[in-house]
Amino acid sequence: MLKKVLIANRGEIAVRVIRACRELGIRTVAIYSEADKEALHTQLADESVCVGGPQSKDSYLNIKNILSAAILTGAEGIHPGFGFLSENSKFAQMCKECNIIFIGPDAETIDAMGNKSKAKEIMDAAGVPIIRGSKGIVETEEEAIELCKTIGYPIMIKASAGGGGRGIRIVREEKDLVSSYTMAKTEAKIAFGDDSMYIEKFIEEPRHIEVQVLGDNYGNVLYLGERDCSIQRRNQKVIEEAPSCVIDEETRKKLGDIAVKAAKAVNYKGAGTIEFLRDKYGEFYFMEMNTRIQVEHPVTEMITGIDIVKEQLNVASNKPLDIKQEDITINGHAIECRINAEDPRAGFMPSPGVVNVINLPGGFGVRLDTAIYNGYKIPPYYDSMVAKLIVHGRDREEAINKMKRALDEFIIEGVKNNIEFQYEILNNKKFNEGDINTSFIAQEFGM
Amino acid sequence: MLKKVLIANRGEIAVRVIRACRELGIRTVAIYSEADKEALHTQLADESVCVGGPQSKDSYLNIKNILSAAILTGAEGIHPGFGFLSENSKFAQMCKECNIIFIGPDAETIDAMGNKSKAKEIMDAAGVPIIRGSKGIVETEEEAIELCKTIGYPIMIKASAGGGGRGIRIVREEKDLVSSYTMAKTEAKIAFGDDSMYIEKFIEEPRHIEVQVLGDNYGNVLYLGERDCSIQRRNQKVIEEAPSCVIDEETRKKLGDIAVKAAKAVNYKGAGTIEFLRDKYGEFYFMEMNTRIQVEHPVTEMITGIDIVKEQLNVASNKPLDIKQEDITINGHAIECRINAEDPRAGFMPSPGVVNVINLPGGFGVRLDTAIYNGYKIPPYYDSMVAKLIVHGRDREEAINKMKRALDEFIIEGVKNNIEFQYEILNNKKFNEGDINTSFIAQEFGM
Repeated sequence: MLKKVLIANRGEIAVRVIRACRELGIRTVAIYSEADKEALHTQLADESVCVGGPQSKDSYLNIKNILSAAILTGAEGIHPGFGFLSENSKFAQMCKECNIIFIGPDAETIDAMGNKSKAKEIMDAAGVPIIRGSKGIVETEEEAIELCKTIGYPIMIKASAGGGGRGIRIVREEKDLVSSYTMAKTEAKIAFGDDSMYIEKFIEEPRHIEVQVLGDNYGNVLYLGERDCSIQRRNQKVIEEAPSCVIDEETRKKLGDIAVKAAKAVNYKGAGTIEFLRDKYGEFYFMEMNTRIQVEHPVTEMITGIDIVKEQLNVASNKPLDIKQEDITINGHAIECRINAEDPRAGFMPSPGVVNVINLPGGFGVRLDTAIYNGYKIPPYYDSMVAKLIVHGRDREEAINKMKRALDEFIIEGVKNNIEFQYEILNNKKFNEGDINTSFIAQEFGM
Repeated sequence: MLKKVLIANRGEIAVRVIRACRELGIRTVAIYSEADKEALHTQLADESVCVGGPQSKDSYLNIKNILSAAILTGAEGIHPGFGFLSENSKFAQMCKECNIIFIGPDAETIDAMGNKSKAKEIMDAAGVPIIRGSKGIVETEEEAIELCKTIGYPIMIKASAGGGGRGIRIVREEKDLVSSYTMAKTEAKIAFGDDSMYIEKFIEEPRHIEVQVLGDNYGNVLYLGERDCSIQRRNQKVIEEAPSCVIDEETRKKLGDIAVKAAKAVNYKGAGTIEFLRDKYGEFYFMEMNTRIQVEHPVTEMITGIDIVKEQLNVASNKPLDIKQEDITINGHAIECRINAEDPRAGFMPSPGVVNVINLPGGFGVRLDTAIYNGYKIPPYYDSMVAKLIVHGRDREEAINKMKRALDEFIIEGVKNNIEFQYEILNNKKFNEGDINTSFIAQEFGM
């Protein structure tokens, strides 16, 4: 087992990793920016090293200083958490060159999955269903007709120069294709001065469903079931749950097998996530693979009992996975609410400042992963997420009721936060019926 | 389902019950003493009623005021928690007479189990193994010899006037009985001026093992496995765990069946606990039945996933148990540490006062049931327990490591507490080997 690990991150995920290390008897080194001297992760670790100024680029992204800190403190491994350097293949490579174990997959794997089109190619070759589309610009009507025959309707015509949802047309039947294609081209020319068009499969009412995988250094790969992360605002997840209420046992196994195939295709080591979109017909499409621990990993932990961060540390210590696929069972239902210091009514604007009153929820089935405390000053330099509130119930209904109860107890004063907004989502009829997709917040709350 | 419940208790158990009610959509009424105006349970409930002065007899034991509060607020049921009025059959009876549902078993059941010798008789008749002994004073040597033949050695000779461990002799073989009996009598005469002696089976190196049962109003009774509560100081539990590391599947079932038989013998309704002593030979002896929720119920909840307080509320609402015995599985290992505001180095003297710094542990597998918060003033009038820290791991080793990690994070300043003492127990070699009995703290720590 690794004896000492440096955590190249901050906030709740740094605390999460420190906790796992401590339970495994691994000594910990925190790094911190000048703004994080009083942060919980800085205080909680066995050792702490300041690696630079408040701006991320000067500290949490400062590869040279981080590697120096690891070497100076004798850390054998570096856990990157999520964000920051967690999917930076150059950093992973440099760790290797410094004889430090990067707690994550190989640099080549990170690279392959970081490049969207390369990732899609690899997955397609491995037999993973992908979102089909043109291999570049669709030049003519004839080309469009032929292509859409192979993709299948509905399809989406996208202006190459468009963005933010502009310059998009949905076509549901072949008879409308030519007119839509022609009109879209004309409009794009006027709007963007560029009429080059892409075409790809249109995913209707997509749910974001992702599968957690674990791989070791001996070619073993497992899946830990799926998470449903369809509750998003502006492409950022807000609530995640496991299992998904639209996935039955059979589909779970099918999807799990696909995820394992995907992970094996890139020789995956450690914890990773294969993200899919599921359309309203129940079809799945590969979206991307995240080659790191994810914010929402706790919901999987709650329903499987498996500590994913400890598994990362085990794998990095060159241990084979000690779990068998057939022993992994789904137990109850878990939900996570991301608690952000932000103002949902003002476009989710971050709200840094001093937390001057805090009351944390507790009790049966309630887990809190946070790095804030009474009197803590939330710095303005980093992500606005300050806590993850996770609940576990015997079924989805109990989990929802438990989350509402816990949100009710959760008090953060001094900074604006989204606790009330989360409560409103939990209270929403469609949410309670499980009738959700990635447009849920936009449609139900107009945000 | 009950619509409104009054909680006739304070502290963490009142908060625990409020949480269960809230998750079930039941409105809550807290009662509080003049010393508990700022208490968390007072603030958390939907309504709160002051029922009297700081002394328990004036408030939390004030039956008249509590019943008035229930009637005035329209509460349909009263949850008594533990301690205070929870095992007061007169109170249970008066609730009934006021048309209020007492959330617990019938007054008759409480009465039967509250009277030790009556309880023993009932259990013996039901086929539950009891600690055999003399039916009163043993007058002669001959009587002692005959009796001990039927009980079996080792036996314990106790001075009727003794107490606190004084005036006790252990006899392991018949050949030593007469001399021990005679000497004990002589000593008792000198020490207490009374030489009447009892004899009973001596339980060697007893572990405290108890079985959680649940009964409904339709005659169904289930068992939820055992708890090992052998870590005690002066007959007060300090650490509890589930399952017990000396109980295998077969014994669990055997013990569970006995517990169900015991509960059925007294027509048990709601949550109850059958306490046993287990001697070093693996034999079990009925000790007593607790006819209420217990402090240590969370460890059972963690390994079974069943919310015992919600089950109490379901049963009180006249619902049949919706769980089947064969569906109850033991999942992993849970440990609870009672966190007391006390000074372990000064005979566990209570240490009331203001909590001026607090840091609560969190993360995966950590549950905290508490009613204290930053700035809270622990009043001097009640029990010194201020929090229950519960952890859940895949096995006992992981649970111990997790508890040590959580205790490490738990900071309470302003009052003396037993967090460090708990840590020392968790670090003890014998504890880690599971080599414990009710004398563990006395033997290992001389306390």
